[in-house]
Amino acid sequence: MHEFELINKYFSKLSYNNKNSLGLNDDVFFDKSKKLVISVDTYVEGVHFIDFQNPDLVIKKIIRSSISDLICKGVKPKFYFISGSGNKKTFTKKNLEMISKSLHQEQKKFLINLCGGDTTFSKKLSFSITSVGFSDKIIFRNKAKLNDDIYVTDNLGDSFVGLKVLQKKIHLNKNLAKYFINKYFHPNLHIKLTNRLLSIANTSIDISDGLVTDLEKLINNQKLSYQLYLKDIPISKNLNKLINSKIIKKINSVTRGDDYQILFTASPSKSRIISKTSKSLGIKISKIGKICNYSEKSQIIDENNKKIALKYKGYFHKF
Amino acid sequence: MHEFELINKYFSKLSYNNKNSLGLNDDVFFDKSKKLVISVDTYVEGVHFIDFQNPDLVIKKIIRSSISDLICKGVKPKFYFISGSGNKKTFTKKNLEMISKSLHQEQKKFLINLCGGDTTFSKKLSFSITSVGFSDKIIFRNKAKLNDDIYVTDNLGDSFVGLKVLQKKIHLNKNLAKYFINKYFHPNLHIKLTNRLLSIANTSIDISDGLVTDLEKLINNQKLSYQLYLKDIPISKNLNKLINSKIIKKINSVTRGDDYQILFTASPSKSRIISKTSKSLGIKISKIGKICNYSEKSQIIDENNKKIALKYKGYFHKF
Repeated sequence: MHEFELINKYFSKLSYNNKNSLGLNDDVFFDKSKKLVISVDTYVEGVHFIDFQNPDLVIKKIIRSSISDLICKGVKPKFYFISGSGNKKTFTKKNLEMISKSLHQEQKKFLINLCGGDTTFSKKLSFSITSVGFSDKIIFRNKAKLNDDIYVTDNLGDSFVGLKVLQKKIHLNKNLAKYFINKYFHPNLHIKLTNRLLSIANTSIDISDGLVTDLEKLINNQKLSYQLYLKDIPISKNLNKLINSKIIKKINSVTRGDDYQILFTASPSKSRIISKTSKSLGIKISKIGKICNYSEKSQIIDENNKKIALKYKGYFHKF
Repeated sequence: MHEFELINKYFSKLSYNNKNSLGLNDDVFFDKSKKLVISVDTYVEGVHFIDFQNPDLVIKKIIRSSISDLICKGVKPKFYFISGSGNKKTFTKKNLEMISKSLHQEQKKFLINLCGGDTTFSKKLSFSITSVGFSDKIIFRNKAKLNDDIYVTDNLGDSFVGLKVLQKKIHLNKNLAKYFINKYFHPNLHIKLTNRLLSIANTSIDISDGLVTDLEKLINNQKLSYQLYLKDIPISKNLNKLINSKIIKKINSVTRGDDYQILFTASPSKSRIISKTSKSLGIKISKIGKICNYSEKSQIIDENNKKIALKYKGYFHKF
């Protein structure tokens, strides 16, 4: 059973009387009267990160992954809490110093503050991060409109290649390997876009599980479909090199998640303001598809105008 | 290294510029301007609960343990988030139904609402609970005053006996065993006392790790000491029976934690209002000691006016 089917089946009814919870069908909790936005996520060794050989990098990645949930909704993160479960090997003096240094760097970069948390003993390493922000409004899921354009920030796919390099499933020269590993650990969050997004996007999500999986989550309660154009999905020069050398296929790199880029839809009338915003902030924002009528089947179109059959839609938490 | 030494050493400085975090030396986060109170805790199988044979009971206990952090600070919990990490055996249909039913019962009992969370795959079972409440003020730690009386709600020790019964280290007849196991899984939270506490207590904490450990945590930044009187520590009739039959010593049951009762100090001038409040709300509140000058050594005095040497102060998360 997929994570969100599971959540829907057993837990939606518990939040029935509480419209703030967004019916548990969003990545954040929003209380309009208190202007409060909260995101809670758990990251488990071997699932969300490979191992803890680089505590400094792992911590940066999970902090970014957590605050990304708020940023993509148009909300600046302000506070965070961290709960670590681990053992003697995890919380050595050296590791704690590295973790503390990383958190300090992330706090400065994103203007967030550690507000609490706890450490508990467990054989299996995991972290839970609670991120908190304040906002009058947020961008909800399931608010796409027919004929909306679909946009994504920055580039996709680099993080997945980084993961494959770390797993020794793709072998690259030192410089390229370093580039992709860095992209895997340091997703580039576009916090400067946060406030602007509120007036541009109809609906939004961050890409954690994969472009297609997250797009389908984004409109899962709407009678709509989508078309994506593979040629328009933005990739880095380095990823383009790998694709040209047939080390990896484009479709297999850009749909596998961990990108933490913002996926949103906007009315075609916003096209000009979006490209202006993109230029003024220096953030790449690419139009990659459109929202279609439910009667049409959702599809990804390749360079030759052919429909692509996807083997992996992305990452699901299966039980 | 103990959990709070560890937190202090490596993470206090990260919240340096943020006075809301209470210097990470409290169980909750309080943002006065937003009137926001948050508590985050992680519960690991084998550490915070023995196993998952009774998912319905385990879930109730961890929810109560989480909202207890707010209640003891004078704050009514309003929302909660639950993050579960587990495997196929944890999240079977049957278990999910039991968990969902338990959460529903706790929501009705404490007027709280599920607002989000996630489920992730992990071999090791753990839950992180984030509890949220709203309040103009809270009762802080480290605000005890010299000569304050020390109070505790309800009875102590039943939960520890319940744990020992579950661990098959204490053997009792069916009825008694049932009584103590029930106390272990269903700590009796005194939510009716919450608001009154704000005008009574100088400082407060809930007893999770143990009476002495938590009392020492409560005043760990103050130049103060304490005296506790063993005879005044409240216990149930059933625990008294075990003590009289020499199955367990009083000092060894009341200091071992998991009670989730409120430990607070108050000025001697509040004595009358406290006993009035106790009567009107029907909540047992016992005076068990006093706050003393730092030059005196902290101590527990037994029935014969002798100082007790403690083998176990309570539960520490050691790494």
